[in-house]
This record gives sequence, C-alpha cells and structure tokens, in this order.
Amino acid sequence: MFSVTVRDHIMIAHSFSGEVFGPAQKLHGATFVVDATFKRRELDDDNIVVDMGLAGQQLHAICAGLSYRNLDDESDFTGVNTSTEFLAKVIADRLADKVAAGELGAGAGGLTGIAVTLHESHIAWAGYERDL
Amino acid sequence: MFSVTVRDHIMIAHSFSGEVFGPAQKLHGATFVVDATFKRRELDDDNIVVDMGLAGQQLHAICAGLSYRNLDDESDFTGVNTSTEFLAKVIADRLADKVAAGELGAGAGGLTGIAVTLHESHIAWAGYERDL
Amino acid sequence: MFSVTVRDHIMIAHSFSGEVFGPAQKLHGATFVVDATFKRRELDDDNIVVDMGLAGQQLHAICAGLSYRNLDDESDFTGVNTSTEFLAKVIADRLADKVAAGELGAGAGGLTGIAVTLHESHIAWAGYERDL
Amino acid sequence: MFSVTVRDHIMIAHSFSGEVFGPAQKLHGATFVVDATFKRRELDDDNIVVDMGLAGQQLHAICAGLSYRNLDDESDFTGVNTSTEFLAKVIADRLADKVAAGELGAGAGGLTGIAVTLHESHIAWAGYERDL
Amino acid sequence: MFSVTVRDHIMIAHSFSGEVFGPAQKLHGATFVVDATFKRRELDDDNIVVDMGLAGQQLHAICAGLSYRNLDDESDFTGVNTSTEFLAKVIADRLADKVAAGELGAGAGGLTGIAVTLHESHIAWAGYERDL
Amino acid sequence: MFSVTVRDHIMIAHSFSGEVFGPAQKLHGATFVVDATFKRRELDDDNIVVDMGLAGQQLHAICAGLSYRNLDDESDFTGVNTSTEFLAKVIADRLADKVAAGELGAGAGGLTGIAVTLHESHIAWAGYERDL
Repeated sequence: MFSVTVRDHIMIAHSFSGEVFGPAQKLHGATFVVDATFKRRELDDDNIVVDMGLAGQQLHAICAGLSYRNLDDESDFTGVNTSTEFLAKVIADRLADKVAAGELGAGAGGLTGIAVTLHESHIAWAGYERDL
Repeated sequence: MFSVTVRDHIMIAHSFSGEVFGPAQKLHGATFVVDATFKRRELDDDNIVVDMGLAGQQLHAICAGLSYRNLDDESDFTGVNTSTEFLAKVIADRLADKVAAGELGAGAGGLTGIAVTLHESHIAWAGYERDL
Repeated sequence: MFSVTVRDHIMIAHSFSGEVFGPAQKLHGATFVVDATFKRRELDDDNIVVDMGLAGQQLHAICAGLSYRNLDDESDFTGVNTSTEFLAKVIADRLADKVAAGELGAGAGGLTGIAVTLHESHIAWAGYERDL
Repeated sequence: MFSVTVRDHIMIAHSFSGEVFGPAQKLHGATFVVDATFKRRELDDDNIVVDMGLAGQQLHAICAGLSYRNLDDESDFTGVNTSTEFLAKVIADRLADKVAAGELGAGAGGLTGIAVTLHESHIAWAGYERDL
Repeated sequence: MFSVTVRDHIMIAHSFSGEVFGPAQKLHGATFVVDATFKRRELDDDNIVVDMGLAGQQLHAICAGLSYRNLDDESDFTGVNTSTEFLAKVIADRLADKVAAGELGAGAGGLTGIAVTLHESHIAWAGYERDL
Repeated sequence: MFSVTVRDHIMIAHSFSGEVFGPAQKLHGATFVVDATFKRRELDDDNIVVDMGLAGQQLHAICAGLSYRNLDDESDFTGVNTSTEFLAKVIADRLADKVAAGELGAGAGGLTGIAVTLHESHIAWAGYERDL
C-alpha cells in the first residue's frame, strides 16, 4: 500500500456544548495543522499516488473555506460540537467529494482511502480515515 | 475510523540483558515521549472519541507511576528487558485497564482500540497497538 | 550564557482591527504553543538556571489565565490587537513579574533575561525577549 | 502488534517526466528523511521487535547506496520517475531483502511487515508498506 | 526585541568543489526548509513586527526563484559553493532588498534585523543573520 | 554572523541532590537530543562555517563518551548535579577543546562561538553558549 500526505492548517474560533468539555465550553479557538493522506494499492502511470501539487491546492481550498471564522456561526455546523475528530471527518469527506468530482486529477480515480489528522497542539491530535 | 491522541513523557533509568543490546547493557536511561491513541468507529453523543482532558490525565497518572525511577529495581519488571516496544505495551495495557474500569468516562466504553508509541530519540521510536 | 526553556500552550479566540490583517479581521482563533526561556550568566548553587518544574508550573498558571477565552472580551486587551508578537510580550512580562515576586524560587533572582516564543502554526511563530 | 522505527536520510538530485510534475520536470533535488518501521506480532526472546542498532546500520547502508547522487544517472532507475512514494518502496524492498538474507539478525525472521515513510519537506511526505 | 518568523522551502540540485565536501562533491540535491525571521525593537501602529501574510508571500517569491533547479547552472552562483550557510545569506539579503524596496509594506521600515535558517535534514541546519 | 548546527543524542542515567529536584532526586534517566551550533563572522575559502561532516563526527565522539552510562558513577562528575544546562556546557567546552586542537579542521580556527542545546523532552530543553 502506498500513501502521500500533504499538510496545511486552519485557524478557527468555536465553543463546545456539554460538561465533558470543561473550560472549552467557552468561546475559544485553535490552530489545526491538517495532514491529508491519500492511499493507493499501485502507483499510476506517472509512478505516483496522486498529483501532490494538486492535492496540496485542493486541501488548501478546503482549509480556506474553514479558516478565519467562528465555526459556531457557520450554517454547516449549527448545533454541532466541532471537535477535532469531527473536523477531521469534515475535511476527509470534502476531499473524497473532490476526488469523486475529478478535482484531484483523472489518476486519482485509483485512490482507495483518505486519512486526515488534525493537530490541535504539541500534545494532542485527532484523526479520521475512510475508504474511497 | 476515528482516533484521538494525547502526549506525555517519562524519564527512567534501566539496563538490558543480552549481547544484542551492546553498550545499552550498562545502566543508562531514556526520556520516552509517549503518544497514546484511542480509536473508535463512531463518535459518541458529545461528538468525540474520548474526553481528551481525562485521557491526558489518565495517561499522566500512568506516566507518573513509571517515571523518575530505575526500572531495574521495579518489582513489575524483575528480570525483564524493559525495551521501548515492551514499555509501549505496558502503557497500552494499563490504559486498557483504565478504560475497562470506567476511568476514562462512561463514553469510553465505545472505544475499539488503543495504540501507544514511545519516542526514545529523534531517530528511534517503537509502538504497540491492541484491540479493546 | 545558560538558558532553560519550558513549553506549554494556549487556545484562544480573537479578531484583529486593521486592513493589514486581511481575513484575520474576522473572529477566528489560534493555538499558541508557548516556549518560555530563562537566561543566566552562571548556574546557581544547585547547578541550574531555574527550578524547571516550578518554571513549568508558573508558565502553566499564566497560560491558564489566557486560555479558553475570547481575548476580544478581556479587559486587559480592550482595543488592542492581540498579535502573536504582542502576546509573547504579555507572557514574558508576566513571567518577569513572577520572578520579581519570588514565585520562581529564591535562586531565580540571578536570572538576567526572559524570551518567549509563540508558535501559531507549523509555518509561523513570533517572539519577544527582554532583560530582567 | 509491535513496531520499531529508525530514521535516517538521503540527499539526491533527480528530475521527473510528465506534465503532472510541473516545475519538478527540471533537474532539482531533495532531502528525504527516511523512517523505516519493522512490525511483529510477538516480541522475541530478548523482548524486542528487532535489533534497533542493527536496523539503523542496515538502513544507513541502504541510504548510503542512494545518497549524494543524481538518480537520473543510476542504472537502477533508468526511465523511471523516482517519486517519493516509489523511493519508499525501493527502500522497503531493499530492507525486506536484508531481512531475508539474515542481515537484521536471526531474530528478524519473526518480522511480519515493513513500512517506509520519506519526508520530502515540512509539508509533504509519502510512504509504502508491505508484508514480509 | 520582537521577532516574527515565517517558514517555506526550496528543493534544489547542486554539487560542491573541494575535498572537504567528500561525497557531496558529486551532483546531489537537498530540500531546504527556510525560516525567515524579522526583528524589531518596538511594534508598529498595528501592534505587529511585520505583515506576516506579506512576509510569507515575499519569502515564497524568493523561494520560487531558487527552487526546482540545478544551482550549478544558475548564473548567480557560477563557481560558487552553494553551501547551506551561503544560501541562508542569499535569502536574507534578498529579503533585505525587498524590505528596502517597500515590498514588505511601509511599516517594515522599522525592522532592525533579519535572520534566515535553512534546515537541510533532521540533523543539520545553518543560518545567517544581519542588520537592516 | 553565520552558523551551522549538527544534531546527535545521548542516553544516560543520573540522580540529583537537592530538594529543588523533587522526584528527580531518585536515580532516573534521560535522552538528551544534542544540538551543537558553530558560529563565524565570515565564511572560509570553501564558503562554509565548518566542515559539517567533521563537526558531526566530533560531536558524535563526544556523545559516545557520555552515553550509555550512569553519570553518577563518572569520575568527571563526582558530587556534581549533571543538570541539562550543566551538560550543555560540558559538551560545548569539549567541542571548544577539539576546535583548539585542530580536530574540526584547519578552517575551524575562524570560529567565534559555540552554542549547545540539550532537549530533554518535548516540553523542556536547556542550553549554553560561549565564545571561542
């Protein structure tokens, strides 16, 4: 199994609902360093998993659509706890949609899985992985 | 599959028995930076894998029970080579016991696996993963 | 010259005022990984720069007083752009106050300088350093 | 499942063939930081996955055979795009050959898999994993 | 003293002349992760050292002018050993020129120094710092 | 001012004397990731600060002389608290001796300073710098 990973980041405000979140129930924020991994059984005709430049651009487009905002005010996330693990799934699913729409190139049709990790600090991170 | 990881560290002395260990047969020591990963198929009602704060506290309690000592003198490890990979299993199993005892919260009952990685330097690390 | 550094972090929401900030004028947030460095010409009687454990505790107390909140709503920062470099100075000055108040131990009287670096992402950080 | 990872690096020149590579079609170069992971179900009689020192030496020998050269001129890679993911497979396969030849020690016969990750920058890396 | 740092990278081929370089006399290559630091005594009217977004863009422009090429063929470097420390100076001087030309914004006139670090691997880096 | 840094590491056991050290008064251990920086005003005739390969070898020799032992039993450190900051000075001074003895090459005579940083964990490090 082959994989390629590209990194970007988002900077957002949000709050959480539920006692389990303690002080994080208040409006606060986070930088999430985002690692997006693309998986594939065999390399394509160019000897790659995916066009790494294009993968970086598409991840950046998704990050730009999430960053520099208060997620509590986004209609996509109304009433939702935008936890690190949940946001990893949001980004993985949006990448999967782009793969399906051909936005990662024709060769990306051979991808078999996506994994996304969000680092929220030097001591905590979360991830989500799915098949394609 | 979702995951959440928290990081802590221990600082210990130990020695190894066996020619394969070369100079590490002498009493020496290590800092192990410990990454503990909790896995789960679906998020819980709070939209999380596990209470990250509680996970960090419980990992810290396990680390405090190992750190600042000579593992050669610990009754738990008599006659055992406390290799990096072995210690990863020790910490993973202690975390699994805590999950079973409810110490990571009621929601942690939905966890399906634990993985622990111990970084012994910038050029070497080891890990262990198990089901729950 | 000797130095000792300890690391902690804060997670905050804030917004900026001024065209130079572009999209960051909107309410967003950040994780700042905080590195606090203590400097000293000669080691003290215990052969250290400062009690590293105490330094970590005091830095954590300062971080706890800043984290999990919207800095736009804090009276300390009314009408102020809480830029990364500005927050580095806030933390450095608060540490300096603690040194002066003896909260880093009697030996800390020999410290000659403090430097604070705040990492806002994997591609950007800022710092402030001052004499004591 | 247990694992042990050792890190080394190579510094090479190469060029790519194919429009997908954009500016990287020109002769350029890269540092690849190489992480080689060895996997095993149960620890051996010394309580380890593999002799970590020997694993590091053998990885270094493989890296020395690739580094400080222009891969375009290497007979092993004639007409091949030496992408990051492809080179990860080259190194993994060479490690597997060494395991089979007994060069990682007699105990290494119990290894069940190898994974290799090559970091080409702070924002991109690629990997390959295989069974033994 | 305040500072702001932004990170980018270049991927280049080159060779060295001189016995001191050993195997690196052959054509090889490197990824240099580039950290550019801007220093200033007092913050400007926006409470910043420099427009971090603009600093990142200008550093990227300089990196784009160096990356994806064989430095041995560049007229700027004819007969020059493009060592890591030398390239740090090249980038620092080009940033200084941009500051002087107003390309980092009017506020950048208050900058007092620039430092550039180039990381060539996980075990080696080099830097250059200068006044403005 | 130019600089070049090389990284290595040591793994040692030790204990501390003095209440300020708390639990670290017991025999424990540490991995210290060691960064050694060499400084110079102008580059030498090869366009470098120092022979990076030789610098790495000499740092490794010093590390080999400290690693895989219990520092409490070393005659060099009898009755001394081998704190992180103290060990940084030990390594810096040993490097300075090697520079003076010509072991870093003839060109190293132009070096003006050495700085050594020892990382003891992901959240703590210490350093020492001196002139040559």
